[in-house]
Amino acid sequence: MLEKFLNTRSHSLEICKNLVPEDYVLQPIQDVSPAKWHLAHTTWFFENFILKPNLPGYKEFHPRYAYLFNSYYESEGERTLRHQRGDLSRPTVNEVKAYRQHVDEAMKKLIPNANAEVLSLLQLGLQHEQQHQELLITDLKYSLALNPLDISVLNINEQSNSGVKHGFAKIDAGIYTIGHQAEGFCFDNELGVHQVYLHDFEIEKSLVDNADWLAFIADGGYENPLHWHSEGWTWVKENNIEAPLYWSKAQDGSMQVYTLNGNEALNEQSPVTHISFYEAAAYADWAGHRLPTEFEWEIASEKFSWAKRWEWTNSAYLPYPGYSKAEGALGEYNGKFMVNQMVLRGASIATAKDHSRKTYRNFFHPHLRWQFTGLRVCKR
Amino acid sequence: MLEKFLNTRSHSLEICKNLVPEDYVLQPIQDVSPAKWHLAHTTWFFENFILKPNLPGYKEFHPRYAYLFNSYYESEGERTLRHQRGDLSRPTVNEVKAYRQHVDEAMKKLIPNANAEVLSLLQLGLQHEQQHQELLITDLKYSLALNPLDISVLNINEQSNSGVKHGFAKIDAGIYTIGHQAEGFCFDNELGVHQVYLHDFEIEKSLVDNADWLAFIADGGYENPLHWHSEGWTWVKENNIEAPLYWSKAQDGSMQVYTLNGNEALNEQSPVTHISFYEAAAYADWAGHRLPTEFEWEIASEKFSWAKRWEWTNSAYLPYPGYSKAEGALGEYNGKFMVNQMVLRGASIATAKDHSRKTYRNFFHPHLRWQFTGLRVCKR
Amino acid sequence: MLEKFLNTRSHSLEICKNLVPEDYVLQPIQDVSPAKWHLAHTTWFFENFILKPNLPGYKEFHPRYAYLFNSYYESEGERTLRHQRGDLSRPTVNEVKAYRQHVDEAMKKLIPNANAEVLSLLQLGLQHEQQHQELLITDLKYSLALNPLDISVLNINEQSNSGVKHGFAKIDAGIYTIGHQAEGFCFDNELGVHQVYLHDFEIEKSLVDNADWLAFIADGGYENPLHWHSEGWTWVKENNIEAPLYWSKAQDGSMQVYTLNGNEALNEQSPVTHISFYEAAAYADWAGHRLPTEFEWEIASEKFSWAKRWEWTNSAYLPYPGYSKAEGALGEYNGKFMVNQMVLRGASIATAKDHSRKTYRNFFHPHLRWQFTGLRVCKR
Amino acid sequence: MLEKFLNTRSHSLEICKNLVPEDYVLQPIQDVSPAKWHLAHTTWFFENFILKPNLPGYKEFHPRYAYLFNSYYESEGERTLRHQRGDLSRPTVNEVKAYRQHVDEAMKKLIPNANAEVLSLLQLGLQHEQQHQELLITDLKYSLALNPLDISVLNINEQSNSGVKHGFAKIDAGIYTIGHQAEGFCFDNELGVHQVYLHDFEIEKSLVDNADWLAFIADGGYENPLHWHSEGWTWVKENNIEAPLYWSKAQDGSMQVYTLNGNEALNEQSPVTHISFYEAAAYADWAGHRLPTEFEWEIASEKFSWAKRWEWTNSAYLPYPGYSKAEGALGEYNGKFMVNQMVLRGASIATAKDHSRKTYRNFFHPHLRWQFTGLRVCKR
Repeated sequence: MLEKFLNTRSHSLEICKNLVPEDYVLQPIQDVSPAKWHLAHTTWFFENFILKPNLPGYKEFHPRYAYLFNSYYESEGERTLRHQRGDLSRPTVNEVKAYRQHVDEAMKKLIPNANAEVLSLLQLGLQHEQQHQELLITDLKYSLALNPLDISVLNINEQSNSGVKHGFAKIDAGIYTIGHQAEGFCFDNELGVHQVYLHDFEIEKSLVDNADWLAFIADGGYENPLHWHSEGWTWVKENNIEAPLYWSKAQDGSMQVYTLNGNEALNEQSPVTHISFYEAAAYADWAGHRLPTEFEWEIASEKFSWAKRWEWTNSAYLPYPGYSKAEGALGEYNGKFMVNQMVLRGASIATAKDHSRKTYRNFFHPHLRWQFTGLRVCKR
Repeated sequence: MLEKFLNTRSHSLEICKNLVPEDYVLQPIQDVSPAKWHLAHTTWFFENFILKPNLPGYKEFHPRYAYLFNSYYESEGERTLRHQRGDLSRPTVNEVKAYRQHVDEAMKKLIPNANAEVLSLLQLGLQHEQQHQELLITDLKYSLALNPLDISVLNINEQSNSGVKHGFAKIDAGIYTIGHQAEGFCFDNELGVHQVYLHDFEIEKSLVDNADWLAFIADGGYENPLHWHSEGWTWVKENNIEAPLYWSKAQDGSMQVYTLNGNEALNEQSPVTHISFYEAAAYADWAGHRLPTEFEWEIASEKFSWAKRWEWTNSAYLPYPGYSKAEGALGEYNGKFMVNQMVLRGASIATAKDHSRKTYRNFFHPHLRWQFTGLRVCKR
Repeated sequence: MLEKFLNTRSHSLEICKNLVPEDYVLQPIQDVSPAKWHLAHTTWFFENFILKPNLPGYKEFHPRYAYLFNSYYESEGERTLRHQRGDLSRPTVNEVKAYRQHVDEAMKKLIPNANAEVLSLLQLGLQHEQQHQELLITDLKYSLALNPLDISVLNINEQSNSGVKHGFAKIDAGIYTIGHQAEGFCFDNELGVHQVYLHDFEIEKSLVDNADWLAFIADGGYENPLHWHSEGWTWVKENNIEAPLYWSKAQDGSMQVYTLNGNEALNEQSPVTHISFYEAAAYADWAGHRLPTEFEWEIASEKFSWAKRWEWTNSAYLPYPGYSKAEGALGEYNGKFMVNQMVLRGASIATAKDHSRKTYRNFFHPHLRWQFTGLRVCKR
Repeated sequence: MLEKFLNTRSHSLEICKNLVPEDYVLQPIQDVSPAKWHLAHTTWFFENFILKPNLPGYKEFHPRYAYLFNSYYESEGERTLRHQRGDLSRPTVNEVKAYRQHVDEAMKKLIPNANAEVLSLLQLGLQHEQQHQELLITDLKYSLALNPLDISVLNINEQSNSGVKHGFAKIDAGIYTIGHQAEGFCFDNELGVHQVYLHDFEIEKSLVDNADWLAFIADGGYENPLHWHSEGWTWVKENNIEAPLYWSKAQDGSMQVYTLNGNEALNEQSPVTHISFYEAAAYADWAGHRLPTEFEWEIASEKFSWAKRWEWTNSAYLPYPGYSKAEGALGEYNGKFMVNQMVLRGASIATAKDHSRKTYRNFFHPHLRWQFTGLRVCKR
């Protein structure tokens, strides 16, 4: 467990290894947090929920860091407003690294003698840090994409696919069990294991790819309101949406996409990504299909390979029957976000290793595009 | 059928009988439309979808009314922006009444010889007008409530209840059939009759009443973020929400509520109303309960009386399995709104007679309060 | 004086004689008030500042009207928010007319025996009502212009000119006296008669006309940022400004303008109107000229005819040396608006008869266009 | 001249000597630019307006820097939106320093052989850099003040005064000459030397100090709308303004102010600073005085000492008679800002040495407070 802790912690720094200090401060929109903030917030999670209550004699690194690095825990008191995280140059990157080291040293003392409750919190803290590792990547991408200097800081292969379409998988109607039943960690929103009745359905084994998306564009997909939700259409018009996020025309007129390696030519066989739920739903309508529900996805997921893109489903993010919030501050982890968001299933090329499972429920507002989102369709 | 048509049409005017011409123009917020607009829009619906295609020689009342009174049908062309409906003093109330008469005369010619398709559109047109009759009432209430002169224009008894609590009804787990199976009209969003598996649950036979709500307030319900969705809490803070819409303190310090009869003393036994989904969910959390899903509500609805308040459920407004949009413009009736809204079940004291059934799916955004909304709870 | 009072009061109603009740309620933007509000607010002015303090036994018409019809007098207490004036259908037009009659009857009793102080307030009340008569016209124009039904309610000839250009008038340098010195009424902002030194200048005797403006448009005047103030350019871009307010293309491609008589063909010889200060200044720069200051205008005004258009000057609205606010509530009449607005001199075709003089200082924010604004230029 | 160039250039870096790289990126509000941007933009000014047209063979440092570091020159092409300057982590601080060195080396070659036109541009470039040195200081202060860690990076003594009040100076009425007549540099907005007639007036020899301001607060100055411009009062209410910017209550209840040395106790004898024009005008009204015009200030300035605070005047920023914009891009330097801003005269403790004169016209919007603003009053 100690080794897993140390590996996870060092991986967060590894992601940032090519950054200069100036990169760590950027927060171009409220949804995107500075890299420095991610590194400190995940550390505060261990300090606040594990070290303070469980390591006798633990000395807080700095009295104001709880204020600076609490994200949204109302029960933990006042905090920096979310949109002001990027207004803080201090603590510096080096000070945040010292904070990480201070907390890691204390955790090294605590872990070998940890009881079950602490181990369970430790598990949650590591999963939490892995979630922020993905956000580190997507937030950096968003922030650096705004810079006209075509910056490359991470060597992740975003585009790639066989280009082969594998057809549809058929699933029979019946009562199925949903939710996390296996050994091992899961988040509270996967609990409330329960039965659902599914009608029979057919789901595509392959993700929608860039060639499909180019066809959608060429056929006027972004110009025909009848394929869109009413709110989706308003979003298209108000934001002049004409293509997925990060697509642009190169000087020679060809389509290019911004990646963490800088701009690259569009790969038509690669699964489309950086699309909103609105776009996913409009595409499905245009194609004469529909999006799967999260339950259909979970049950069918053994029939296809997944993990390249977070896949939009047509399920709203709601509690499972029997779901109950945890006691105390950690009860704020998931439940309070269960309105106005849509569920994504799967995982993406930016997801931390060992941080995916078929019952995992990711969720975002329907207009958001900065995650590595994609889609697969079902027959109507 | 002709009689039903004439009755429905005259009922819309009946609702407005105490209005002065100035009242018909008000649109204080985008969600609320002027009375004049409701009267004209429902008329345009018959003219545009029934008379023009089906009554040979029908002469359009006015060439610009389609522009003025189309609500949201993209396939029917350009139209007045929603928030500008209240900027139009012309056509006058009398001109709108003449428009209604012109269309009614033509319908009287058409109906006796109508074929099945026309009768089906007529049915939809009447249901549509009934929906707007409820909106007429709730929109007038919202508009007149802003006037400090304490205006009374409609004699509807909003507050009333036995005050007796009837306990919880128990429903067994099993596979249930959801959706409209009976004879008679339903909207397309009730179709896609399908099976769902429900776990056993217990649902309260009575609505939450004003006495319950006063207890919630007294216990700091509006001040404790832990009962609220994160977005609900932001809504509370930004709008200084402290009580249901239309509640205020009278000069003697007692609580009063604005009704269409003017201000009245709060009746503690009356079911609470004019609450948002956020408030309903926070109340349920505070009470140690939860909201029902729309499926639980539909199956349990034979165990209790309903129809006083539209009841918030914890179900997002999404298509049923097998749902498909109608062909043409009427395909825009429901489907394009299936994102970011929550389902309400039941009916309210403002719902038109013969316009309710247990499969009816109403839907609004979670922050909206100007409908006669309420709630009942389930055991967790 | 009584006769003048009665004439002025009845003229306000005369302006509205072609209106239907629905027209009286419109408030499409905050700057524009409903006709009903103008009729009531001017009445409240007499009731509040004259009758209540000076007519023994005067009985207030309605206890809530002070709340409803106070415009901006902080010292007179709480009031309807400016942008909500259009949300009030009651009191009705007829009730407002009854309010006018009630106040007029009381004034008829007071005026014959009024002392000098009351007569001075009466004078101010009448001038105030005349100001609102102009606003009645411009506000109605703005409100009705939004209606696609091409409504005509007022027979005012807006467009007309000889088309002859009269060249420039030359004024010599020297010390001049500015401000109201004559007998008769003036507003406090015209006081503080004082000396200014003017350098010699040349001012055009004719207003800029529509033909001039068409040349400005044809030469790309709205597309070249170098002619514009920085904030003016932002205003052009954000609002897609391409022509004066109320200009549009008719179906045959010719330019038409909306007037209170409905749409009319553009008259090239008519002085341009409904332009913002930003547009006036950009035009002057494009033409190689400049706008006059308000002092230059006042001194030169005997050399040309004026009163067709309010003429933008390049003077900001600031107090004259020695200006002091009146005691009490009426001290709020002018002084508190002396920031961020530009002075207009002259009068317009909508200005009440006997309500113009060369020292009159009108003022609006630089982006506003709904008054009958225009310009004349000076040589650089 | 070369020496002056090198001194000015190195002084900009000197101001930043205690910064960490993270500090250089901050842009908490649109008005405030990142330190890195100031260092690069002033460099671009030399490169773009001097080196490129005048140094044969000069090689541009980077092809995209013109896009990144042009501030507002429409004639110089597209550029980063103002509010996105803080979204750019690259070029890094070190790269910007290399840019500065590259340009300085080229300037060293050019200056010894520069002709009069180039020397005049050089003069402008240095004055421009000195303006940005003051902004560097005030922008850093604003950015760092938001950080709860009480950061100190600059050793500037902001608070200090004798505490002695020197009474009023009397100036006689007459014709005076305004504008820059001396040898040496001035900005174009100081030109158009011209005559003005001033009535006699009395102006206080001392600035309003913190003790005065505390009396204003204690007397309810921020709560009485009658002292305020209407827009000022709206600004107070919407922003909950209760004191100058940077004032706060220390834990012991005493008043403290944030300075570039961190928080300090309020010095009552120090001239008040970080106030808006609205506050300055409200204070003057409360005190029974008024603000001077910029002309009064310029003529009286030999009667008192100044340079601690930029002093709000009651003059709007407008062109002098005979003012004309320069040819080409530099014509955008001043003229296009001459609307909606108020003139400040004097200089502040953050103004570069040798960068002040009695004819200098500074200007800001009336609500802005982040400069070292203050006031002195005139008798009414």
